[in-house]
Amino acid sequence: MSLALDENIALVLHKVDDLRLEPFPVTEPKDGEVLLEMQSVGICGSDVHYWKRGAIGDFIVRAPMVLGHESSGKIIKVGPNVKNLKEGDRVTIEPGVPCRRCDFCKTGRYNLCPDVVFLATPPVHGSIARYHTHAADFCFKLPDHVTYEEGAFCEPLSVGVHACRRAGVTIGSKVLITGAGPIGLVSMLAAKAMGADTIIMTDISQARLDFAKTVGATYTLLADNDAQKTAQKVTETLGCMPNISIECSGAESSIQTTFYGTVSGGVVVLVGLGRPLASLPIVNAAVREIDIRGVFRYANCYPAALSLIASGRIDVKPLITHRYDINESVKAFEMAESGQAIKVMIKCGKEVQN
Amino acid sequence: MSLALDENIALVLHKVDDLRLEPFPVTEPKDGEVLLEMQSVGICGSDVHYWKRGAIGDFIVRAPMVLGHESSGKIIKVGPNVKNLKEGDRVTIEPGVPCRRCDFCKTGRYNLCPDVVFLATPPVHGSIARYHTHAADFCFKLPDHVTYEEGAFCEPLSVGVHACRRAGVTIGSKVLITGAGPIGLVSMLAAKAMGADTIIMTDISQARLDFAKTVGATYTLLADNDAQKTAQKVTETLGCMPNISIECSGAESSIQTTFYGTVSGGVVVLVGLGRPLASLPIVNAAVREIDIRGVFRYANCYPAALSLIASGRIDVKPLITHRYDINESVKAFEMAESGQAIKVMIKCGKEVQN
Amino acid sequence: MSLALDENIALVLHKVDDLRLEPFPVTEPKDGEVLLEMQSVGICGSDVHYWKRGAIGDFIVRAPMVLGHESSGKIIKVGPNVKNLKEGDRVTIEPGVPCRRCDFCKTGRYNLCPDVVFLATPPVHGSIARYHTHAADFCFKLPDHVTYEEGAFCEPLSVGVHACRRAGVTIGSKVLITGAGPIGLVSMLAAKAMGADTIIMTDISQARLDFAKTVGATYTLLADNDAQKTAQKVTETLGCMPNISIECSGAESSIQTTFYGTVSGGVVVLVGLGRPLASLPIVNAAVREIDIRGVFRYANCYPAALSLIASGRIDVKPLITHRYDINESVKAFEMAESGQAIKVMIKCGKEVQN
Amino acid sequence: MSLALDENIALVLHKVDDLRLEPFPVTEPKDGEVLLEMQSVGICGSDVHYWKRGAIGDFIVRAPMVLGHESSGKIIKVGPNVKNLKEGDRVTIEPGVPCRRCDFCKTGRYNLCPDVVFLATPPVHGSIARYHTHAADFCFKLPDHVTYEEGAFCEPLSVGVHACRRAGVTIGSKVLITGAGPIGLVSMLAAKAMGADTIIMTDISQARLDFAKTVGATYTLLADNDAQKTAQKVTETLGCMPNISIECSGAESSIQTTFYGTVSGGVVVLVGLGRPLASLPIVNAAVREIDIRGVFRYANCYPAALSLIASGRIDVKPLITHRYDINESVKAFEMAESGQAIKVMIKCGKEVQN
Repeated sequence: MSLALDENIALVLHKVDDLRLEPFPVTEPKDGEVLLEMQSVGICGSDVHYWKRGAIGDFIVRAPMVLGHESSGKIIKVGPNVKNLKEGDRVTIEPGVPCRRCDFCKTGRYNLCPDVVFLATPPVHGSIARYHTHAADFCFKLPDHVTYEEGAFCEPLSVGVHACRRAGVTIGSKVLITGAGPIGLVSMLAAKAMGADTIIMTDISQARLDFAKTVGATYTLLADNDAQKTAQKVTETLGCMPNISIECSGAESSIQTTFYGTVSGGVVVLVGLGRPLASLPIVNAAVREIDIRGVFRYANCYPAALSLIASGRIDVKPLITHRYDINESVKAFEMAESGQAIKVMIKCGKEVQN
Repeated sequence: MSLALDENIALVLHKVDDLRLEPFPVTEPKDGEVLLEMQSVGICGSDVHYWKRGAIGDFIVRAPMVLGHESSGKIIKVGPNVKNLKEGDRVTIEPGVPCRRCDFCKTGRYNLCPDVVFLATPPVHGSIARYHTHAADFCFKLPDHVTYEEGAFCEPLSVGVHACRRAGVTIGSKVLITGAGPIGLVSMLAAKAMGADTIIMTDISQARLDFAKTVGATYTLLADNDAQKTAQKVTETLGCMPNISIECSGAESSIQTTFYGTVSGGVVVLVGLGRPLASLPIVNAAVREIDIRGVFRYANCYPAALSLIASGRIDVKPLITHRYDINESVKAFEMAESGQAIKVMIKCGKEVQN
Repeated sequence: MSLALDENIALVLHKVDDLRLEPFPVTEPKDGEVLLEMQSVGICGSDVHYWKRGAIGDFIVRAPMVLGHESSGKIIKVGPNVKNLKEGDRVTIEPGVPCRRCDFCKTGRYNLCPDVVFLATPPVHGSIARYHTHAADFCFKLPDHVTYEEGAFCEPLSVGVHACRRAGVTIGSKVLITGAGPIGLVSMLAAKAMGADTIIMTDISQARLDFAKTVGATYTLLADNDAQKTAQKVTETLGCMPNISIECSGAESSIQTTFYGTVSGGVVVLVGLGRPLASLPIVNAAVREIDIRGVFRYANCYPAALSLIASGRIDVKPLITHRYDINESVKAFEMAESGQAIKVMIKCGKEVQN
Repeated sequence: MSLALDENIALVLHKVDDLRLEPFPVTEPKDGEVLLEMQSVGICGSDVHYWKRGAIGDFIVRAPMVLGHESSGKIIKVGPNVKNLKEGDRVTIEPGVPCRRCDFCKTGRYNLCPDVVFLATPPVHGSIARYHTHAADFCFKLPDHVTYEEGAFCEPLSVGVHACRRAGVTIGSKVLITGAGPIGLVSMLAAKAMGADTIIMTDISQARLDFAKTVGATYTLLADNDAQKTAQKVTETLGCMPNISIECSGAESSIQTTFYGTVSGGVVVLVGLGRPLASLPIVNAAVREIDIRGVFRYANCYPAALSLIASGRIDVKPLITHRYDINESVKAFEMAESGQAIKVMIKCGKEVQN
């Protein structure tokens, strides 16, 4: 295969509110890399955030940057020393490639690698494009019956898998999930797959809770402004305190709810991000030996996420509510921003493929 | 309620092959105890073994002993200081009550307590009886929709739960289970509930394997005499080596299969018991850092086992193949010994209750 | 031995500031209990707090209560079914006896048992007395060369051991300890014994830091009001960020220092207690996957604490700065409150014994 | 610096018993690599084994191979993209560089990487040479006060560290080590540094045991042929069964001793390698829930090993009993093979340096 470098187009964020589909160079696959014809890319909240705000915390878009990191594609060329994949393979793409040399990489926590190259995190370009080059060992072969959209969905699902692994969800677990947005939903799906006994979800939107119920939450509860009151209602609903809480909203009151509401000796996992400083009932949590664990992306979760989808244990299709062609990318982003969608997928291929 | 002590009958093993249903004293519930009207008791392989051989290893039946330890009942009287239960409660009964004072008890591994009082393990009497007195904190309340038979089944299921916990089964796990008897089956059910990706079971009986397939095994494989050949076939079937193996047969060749056949860095759990000395490829397992972990009964597994049944995640009913009234206990034991049954249940109550 | 009930005296807190040495009944040892002639009892900050404030959090002194829970004694009578100890044994006394029946007790986390009976925690009487009756399995035999004072010191040392176990201190650990009071010091001693590579301690008192240095801290640092600045200085001193931080001051700024100052993927253990609500940089900690773990007393730590003292790995003698006879108990409490002492010991025996 | 490729000499094993010091090419440091002037290299039992037998298990010397993998050196040139080191740095060299791409590498268990390139393991050349090129991230900077010999000793010490980490050695541990050769000794030193309470070592050589005692073993015991008898004597000596056993001899009877002799719920770590099949009391170990864990080299242990030496917690100097210049390498190997030495070091530098 020979690819003319000018054949590629990509969705480039030039500055806040300035998103353009335009020609974009593509690099030849080097040692251990593959060149991919991109297929499906999901829009993440972070993509929308960069588009509308230009930054997330210390990550600031200072130069034009391609968006997108929840992606799948077909391999059209393999670089030297690639053994696990071949031309024609359909794959899901883990977006962060770490340095492989630091202590975090060597001890299996490569998500904490300070030199990780992560798609669509400034200054690294993302994957909403016709073509993309990636490290082969961060591409995972899709079984024939798994669609490209499901492949792309391995990315958000990996966040849920990582959160639930950090939490230690297993059979018998009673799980509270605060926040019923996309991350709350994938955490719920992962928790169920890991055998959780009961899952209760809270949110301030009844519509989101209703949707959560249709895709698997055991109970839902409209969150009260008063964190202790919400915690109390959770206990009443479950008949006991949850032993695991996964915070997916970033709201201060929700973090407080997890601290007050988790049973002694239990675990709180923090996935949602809110204001840098929060007022927290830390003594309550500490004297009851609640473990509080943060989450940053994921490590070693793609194989499990993919196997959950491939085996049918998790059905992510109901969460994919909208689809657009790459040429309609800006419309796709407008839908994602509207709050009406759960997950918006962009089709990057010239022909529609599953 | 007032119970005349002569109202009780129990199934007493007097000596090898001499099993009699006869009057048996019942004790008043002391501090922290409850008196139960027994309902369902399953027959375990160990019960049959004591009946036919009079001993299991160092446990020798030297005096008449009531059999049975997989049991459920209704509480008809509570002793002093019982707070978690009340008269009328339907419960499943965890059969081993530990000393509560030794290091094992204090560190959460009470199954290793040398002073545990375990039903139907000489010289402790079992629970195939009209009435039985038990520690209240080792009785677990059944939800209304869980039957007494399902309650009794929490005992073998707890063995499977403990084995899978020791193994660390979770999403993505590829599990080999050698031996498709009752313990292999409950281990398979527990592994599935914990999210295992794929489960392959081996046995020397095709009939057992066929049954295993109907209740959930992903793959089955007739075991070869040659352990390395069986290991090789397992790898071929899965497309990779399993990362967890649970040995439930006690056969030397099966243990060898798990040592040869588990992926480097994986876990082998030994549940089946065979001859005291076995010839094992220990260097192969050691240089590949396979962890080998034994299993003795279970600790802290009843709540999870019960929740799996109550939530419908595990359906144990297909495994209950035969039922007898307590008056037909000897017939029940003959059926259990015949090898035609998976699980035989004895109904101990005067009236049939669910 | 026959003990007249009127022979006993104890140090009773009647109400705030009202501490009296007076006759006090002693109970006969029941099943599994022993009667002890008390020897050494250390004064804990909590004893002083009850004396001066009448309460700690929700624990309120509503009726006269004997103080003291860091104690050792000689067994003068054993109750029924005591096997591990005999008359004449010299023992250290673990002050909290749990219910032995709840989930916390059964899973090895008996320090979280809601029904624990803990000496000198209202409404339970403490052990500053001539005689005291205790559960035998919570008494640990002292080797002949371990003094009663060292035995009593197993209590605070167990707090340090538990904190360091929760933290996972081991060889190679770089440990920050914020707060150089008694708990900071025992945490430092435990961390060193567990093989920590380097320990840096912070405090707002240079005198405390100087003492910490003499008993083993690798580095000390006067804490800045600005948490981030202190964290920065810690990194400069160590040449890297600590991977474990143990917070022993309860001060908000110190908790903040541990959040900012611990390396990504590290552990913060919270031992000190401050105000119920604290303003915390939780996002900083969460996105760097720092595990935050509380500590409540200890479980299963006495044997290790005692072995550390007995083997000479930890020398607690330099921390015992003042000694008083039980008849001078009020003076002892005044010294403990003055801030001039590290650990004040009260001798309860009629004759001085080691 | 410019290095003429013909300046290098290395100790090449041509075939069994045929060891020659001869000119050997040295490669320029590529991306992420450094060129080292070698200083100290220790002789390992495996080096001697290749020399005298030509193979270890499946690793067969089929072509001339340089020996040596316990090494330290000075950096004389850095390749592109090396940030952690600079010319002139004194370093210890971790000999195995893994593929960085497989599941083992990504999950922190790179010692199990099937594509690891490990010095002096056929067909990879070792480091007994004047110059050697190595991955920079597998070189660790020595503090000024740590000698090159101590640096080289990080290799065997890492084996001990890994074994003790796999075993979970910590304060309170009662450790049995079977085999008092070099690996038994480094395991003992690591166990002590991790806070082990008591260490008992067994061997069939009283001389080795006497040496072990001088460098830190609490107790020593001449092993009996009868494994159960040895286990019994261990218990008598300690006053209890050890909770951790580290098998460093490879002898069948010693493995049996660890199975019989470890307390229920304890851990056996297998470091020594013996015959492929061994007759083992696996039922005894399994029903007592003893975890049996193998060891293959080490991963992420060099930093801890180096910090133990640098801080003075472990003194390895008494174990370095013989020293030779690289020109006397064959004599050095003869001494290593004689059994009279503990550790033989070869000095590779032109000038003697610490």
